[in-house]
Parts: sequence; C-alpha cells; structure tokens
Amino acid sequence: MAENLVQARVDALRRLTRRRATKPLKKAVDKCSSADVAEAVAHLTRPETLFLFDRLSDDVAGDVMLALRESDLQFVTGEIPLERLTLWLEAMEPDDEADLVARLPEGLRERLLSRLEAAEREDVEELLAWPEDSAGGIMSPVAFRVHENTTCREAIDAFQEQADVEMVFYLYVENDQDQLVGVTSLRNLLINAPSTHLREFMAADVMAVTPETDQEQVARLAARYDLLAVPVVDEAHKLLGIVTIDDVLDVIAEEAAEDMMVMAGVSEGADPYGESAIEAVRSRARWLLVTLVAGVVMAEVINLFEGTLAQNAMLAGFIPVVMGLSGNVGIQAATITVRNLATGHVSAGEGVAELLWKEGRAGILMGLGFGLLLMAWGTLRFPGWQVGGAVGASIGLALIGAAVLGAVIPLVLDRFGIDPAVATGPFVTTLVDLIAIAVYFTVCTTLFGF
Amino acid sequence: MAENLVQARVDALRRLTRRRATKPLKKAVDKCSSADVAEAVAHLTRPETLFLFDRLSDDVAGDVMLALRESDLQFVTGEIPLERLTLWLEAMEPDDEADLVARLPEGLRERLLSRLEAAEREDVEELLAWPEDSAGGIMSPVAFRVHENTTCREAIDAFQEQADVEMVFYLYVENDQDQLVGVTSLRNLLINAPSTHLREFMAADVMAVTPETDQEQVARLAARYDLLAVPVVDEAHKLLGIVTIDDVLDVIAEEAAEDMMVMAGVSEGADPYGESAIEAVRSRARWLLVTLVAGVVMAEVINLFEGTLAQNAMLAGFIPVVMGLSGNVGIQAATITVRNLATGHVSAGEGVAELLWKEGRAGILMGLGFGLLLMAWGTLRFPGWQVGGAVGASIGLALIGAAVLGAVIPLVLDRFGIDPAVATGPFVTTLVDLIAIAVYFTVCTTLFGF
Repeated sequence: MAENLVQARVDALRRLTRRRATKPLKKAVDKCSSADVAEAVAHLTRPETLFLFDRLSDDVAGDVMLALRESDLQFVTGEIPLERLTLWLEAMEPDDEADLVARLPEGLRERLLSRLEAAEREDVEELLAWPEDSAGGIMSPVAFRVHENTTCREAIDAFQEQADVEMVFYLYVENDQDQLVGVTSLRNLLINAPSTHLREFMAADVMAVTPETDQEQVARLAARYDLLAVPVVDEAHKLLGIVTIDDVLDVIAEEAAEDMMVMAGVSEGADPYGESAIEAVRSRARWLLVTLVAGVVMAEVINLFEGTLAQNAMLAGFIPVVMGLSGNVGIQAATITVRNLATGHVSAGEGVAELLWKEGRAGILMGLGFGLLLMAWGTLRFPGWQVGGAVGASIGLALIGAAVLGAVIPLVLDRFGIDPAVATGPFVTTLVDLIAIAVYFTVCTTLFGF
Repeated sequence: MAENLVQARVDALRRLTRRRATKPLKKAVDKCSSADVAEAVAHLTRPETLFLFDRLSDDVAGDVMLALRESDLQFVTGEIPLERLTLWLEAMEPDDEADLVARLPEGLRERLLSRLEAAEREDVEELLAWPEDSAGGIMSPVAFRVHENTTCREAIDAFQEQADVEMVFYLYVENDQDQLVGVTSLRNLLINAPSTHLREFMAADVMAVTPETDQEQVARLAARYDLLAVPVVDEAHKLLGIVTIDDVLDVIAEEAAEDMMVMAGVSEGADPYGESAIEAVRSRARWLLVTLVAGVVMAEVINLFEGTLAQNAMLAGFIPVVMGLSGNVGIQAATITVRNLATGHVSAGEGVAELLWKEGRAGILMGLGFGLLLMAWGTLRFPGWQVGGAVGASIGLALIGAAVLGAVIPLVLDRFGIDPAVATGPFVTTLVDLIAIAVYFTVCTTLFGF
C-alpha cells in the first residue's frame, strides 16, 4: 500500500507534466516530497523537465534540485537562469543550501554565492568549510535558542514569532556567555506552569558533539539516546548548529550503502545510479587489479608444483573447492568481526580474546566437518587414501586459518586506524585464497608424497 | 568527544557498581540510556549485575532488559522474582513490552502475561500477533488522538492532561467514525489561534501504512517524507498505532546489518554478537555446503579435461585468477544492481535496459582490459601465443558473462519475489566461478587445441 502510494504520486506527476496540465500539476506537487518530484524528473524528457520546474514554487524547487540525479541536476542548472536559481537557493535551509552548492560546478558555484546576501553567503561558506562527512558538514545553523532565565510563557511567545524555524523539537538553553547549558522540548513548555523558568526543568546534561565529529558517530549517538537532533558546539561550548534526525537517517543509509560497496570491492567514490560504463570500470578496477596480481602470484605458486600436477592432474580439480570454501569462511569471520567492531561489542582490546577464541573454535569445527566430507568424496572418487587424505587435510587446515585470519585482519586494521570494513571486501578473500592454495599443494607434496 | 562521552558513562556505571556505591550509581543511571546500562552489564560479573538491577528504578529496568544481550537477559530473567519483572514490564511502552516478551522463553512469557492487567495483556498479545518485521510488529498503540472538531485550545488542554504519552510529535485527527482523517503537530497548535478547529489547518493527506506493511517499506517512507512517526491503520482506516522514528532508525540499522550478513553468506537468524561457536557454524554452514557442492561439480568439470591438464600442467595455474576475477566482477555487478533495486532507481521493468546495457559495456571493457593484461603476461611467461591467447580470451569471455549474470540474477530474483540481496552473497560468486571454469577449459581445448 505504502509503496503503491509513492508510485501513484510519482506517476501522477509524470502524467500531468506530459499533459502540460499546469493547475492539477501544481496541486499534485504540493502532496509530493522532493524525492517524488526528482524521481518523476528521471523519467521525463528535457522539455518536460523544464515545464515541470517552471511550475514549481520557489520554496520547493531547491529541495527538488538537491534530490535530482547528477545528470538531471547538470541539465537543470544549465538551463534555468541565474536569477531563479538564486531565489531557489535562498528559500532553502542553510545546510541543504550548502549541500546543493557543493554539488555544482565551480564556476556556477562562485556566481551563485556572489549573488546571495552577505549573511547568507557567510553561513553557506562556513558550512562548506567543514568536511562533508563531519557533524559540521551536515549540521543546520538554524536552532531555537533561548536564555535560561526565560519563562515558559515567554518561550512560547518567542516560538510563535519565530514560526519559520523548521523541524523544531528542542529548545536550546543558553547562559549569559551564550554557552549551551541545557535543552528542553516544546512538550515541556506546555506541561510546566507558564511562569516557570526554563533552567528549572531543562535537562542540563546535554549530549553535544563538536563540528569535527564523524557523521557516523553523530548518527550512532542519536540512535542510542533517541535524540531528534544533536547539538554541535565549539570549544567554548557555544551552539553552532544542530544535526536533525532526517540527516541522521540519511547518514545511516549512506554509510550502509558504502559498507556494501566496500564488501563488493567497489571504490568509495562510486555512484551506483548515474555513472557511465567507463566510470563503473574505474570504480571497480582497483580491487580487480589486486585480484589480478594475487592471481598471478597464485599461478606461480601452482607452477612450483608443475611436476606433481603433470603426474596427478586430478589434483587441479580441487583448486576451486579449496579456494571457494576458504574464501567464504574468511569473509564470514571478517564480516562478523567488523559488525562487532562497528557496534562496539568488541573495542580497544575488550572482547577480542573471546571473539578470536570463538572464531578459532568455529574454524576448527568447520575445518573438521568439511575436511571429512571432502575426504570421503575424494576417497570414493579416486580409490586409495591419498587423494582424499590430501584434500581433506588441506581443507581442514585452510579453513582454520581462514577463520582466524578473517577475524584477526579487521582487528589489526582497526588498531592501525584503518577502516576495518575493508577486510570484508576482496582483500581477505584474495589473501585467504593465496594461503589456501599454498597449504593445499604443500600438503599434497610433503604429507602425501604426490 | 561523543564516543568518549558514551565510553565514560559506561565506565562510570561499571566502576560504581563494582564499588557498590548505591547513591552515585543511581545518579549515573539517570544520565544513561538503556543501551549504556546494558553495555555496562556485559562487562559485569553476575553478582554485580544483580546489584545493579536492584538499584534500577522500575520504569527503566524493562528498557535495560530489552537492550541486554541474549545471555545476560536469560540470566536476569532467571534471577529476578516474577513480581518485579511484572512491575518492570508494566512500566514499558506496549511495543517495547511486546518486543521483550517475544524474547522470553515460552513458560516465563505465559506466566508474565497472565499477571498483567487484562487490557495491557490484550495490547501486548495483539502486537505479538503481527509478524516481527511488519509495521504491526514494531508499532506502538499509544498515539495522541483528537476529534477533528477540537479547537487548538482544547487540544492543548487535552495534551497537558495526557502528559504520559511519550515522544509526541503529531496529533492524529479522527472523524465521527474514528477514521484517521488528518494529522497536525504540536507546533501548529501553538501558531494557530486558540479557537481554530484542527480540521481547518490539519494536513488531510495522511501517509499511512497497514499493519502488514514490511518494516523496511515503513522506514523508507519515513525517510522519504521526513516523518517522525508513520501512522498504521486498519482496512476501515482506523488508527491502530504509530511507528516512531526511533524504531525506524533501528529498522534501517537492522536491515543494513542483515544485508551485510547476506553478502557474507551468513544465515538470516545469525546473532553476530552473543552466539556460541556451534551456533556460528550452524549459521554459516548453509552457504558453505552450497560452495562445497559447486566445488565438487567444478572438480568434475576440470576432470573432464584431465588429459589436457596432464600434458599442460601450467594451465592449472590460471584457475585461481580466472575464478578470482570473474567472481569479483560478478559480485560488483550484482551489488550495484541490488542497490539500484533497493533505492527504486530501477524497478518493475523501468531502467532495466539501461542498467544491463551499462553493465554489459562495463563487462566488455573489463574483459578486454584484463584479457589483454593476462594475455601479455601468459605470452611472456610461457613462450608461444597459445597459453597467453587461451588465458586472455577465456578471461575476456568470462568477465563479460560475469558482469551480465551479476546484473541479471538480482533482477530475476526480484521479478520472482525473492529478496535480490541474496545475489550479493556466495550464490553469484559460486555460479560465476563455475561458468568461468567451464569457459576457460573449453577455450583452452577447442580454440587453442591443447
């Protein structure tokens, strides 16, 4: 039902734009989110897109632009006159404005910024100065601030005057030095007596971050303490802005998408949606090159055993199963470890021993189990105990190694300040494959005398 | 800073519990979220855990229990008397209460439910009846409801009386038939004149879901429309409850973690944190068995070419690089496709052709590039054009096939109503590996006449 509702809204926008039905189109846009309109644009021709943008009111056009795909955004900013773009920008929240400006080509960015009012330009430029993935980069400087000696009645009055502040959940309470000293909610203004001072019932223990804080940490904090907004303060504990829950949602979704790209061995900068075939190749080639180099090394390792292979060609047949199982076990252990690190279940030495001990035992169980299975199959398929024995023993050893390595590598990366998620990608599979192949042929020649 | 703050709170709880410092401990707990307390418990001994729980107030103990790891929860529910557990349950929000009850062993669940008041038990049992991952399974039946003819003044009065309703963001407006007809916010109550009726300014176009809606869809809706709560209605459009933003955050994080588990080939039910080695093996064995079977098939395929291999043992050396590159390319294409499906960039036939065309071209580029690289290396390493030619040509073909298959499989799964994310796991790697090996040996024997 919900999905259909979204689809119906997007479809209505497309249909009405194609029909050039201005009035119903404007009505339909009112019901839609900027994401709906942007999704409709993705399916419109260029003249239709311009028709639609001409019908958008100035206060929604900017948000729609922010939601557009890269290619649509380029087209729209190239066609719409600078004066209108400026109007659209000015109607946006400063944090969204900064996000949009950051996506524009440099020339256009400069021209647009120079047209903004000095105060607004300063706001945007200050926001642009913070790293994109920091609290400063995603915060909005607009927050509802009140002095600690304000009464409930006064605060409500002030609120009624400042009604343009969007998404107000909390009132940030400041002292004479403009330092953030407390926080309270609209709800508390209503349930306390009108003459009460805010400092009497505000929560004085404010959870705040600095603008340099990583956006992922901000998101985790908001989730952990069920906050609708996280205040950002400077060294003097003055309020710089707030990160609101809608941005927190975006961060969590973005970071999850990034983790998946890392696991798939696609570079960070990749855009899964709008990129061209060449951009796609560029974002994927790095890990493929690593795989290629590792593959060449494995080929050389196997070539060391050319004599063995020439006499026992069927040994080559087990290469895929040795690689497949080890790679898989390594990735499983790495992913579990990365999850434990990401959620704080394992950190800074704590819980490490338990985790390694568990993964080690799991590796031994899997090594025994799959080793015995493959030994049985090898023995049935190639009479005599040698083939089955060699395959079983090497799989057993390789899986134990894969489980332990898979768990250790993310811990080591984390200790050295490298994002441990890298370990869930081709890195671990490739390393584990290499070791598994070496183990397999060593066991074949030395233990079983092929 | 933010992370240190969390760590400091958790550490304080541990230290104060160890010191048996009741008063400061109670104060520290007040500043902490239930997640903080649960994290502290994970590092406490059993007597310390009981000491801490004895100092928790009845209205936070239930939430802390909900945040506990499985093993800690089992211990606590086994030690705390039934009367106290009942008190703790009764103080929880009904949706959290249902979540906690669902995690208890059946015997204890029955005994606890039978002690609750009839109305509360009914609430919990109704919530438990919905699937865990549906809107019904995560909604809270507590919402702020008002009739459409209510005035702002009356609504504020009603709100001041019902102050125990937690996390109020929206007022849900009902008509004479108790149907949900509109929604408005606390903010609107304050900025409209006290005598205005809600129906005059409420948003009549309410985005609602049914209790059967998948929790992931609810989360996507909340993110898309920046909603702090999504109302859940029955067929008659009567309000059953709301899904609040804190639950939406949990859903997004949970689904992201699940996606990672799927990519790593770990079963859905896996608990990355508390599970034992045997449980770990059980959750990982399914895909390993698939890999094993595929590996056995590949061994048989390779054995078909035993004659070729016996005479040209160095051909075996290229098996890892053929498998490694193809598997990697397949996973990259599959992950990009799954992201496009998950975000709605590709859906129900739309955008499919563009995506396949892009992946096909990317596959051709990667096939050509890596084919030529390997051909060059093969020719240098093994004089004559045959080895290089065979390896280059087969890698080229295999990578094109891997890219196309990687993109096609998630689309096919999606069409048949299967979660396409499955394609980002060992399924695609294994299938692509198998095809790549078959291509490699076929090219070696038929085209290059080894």
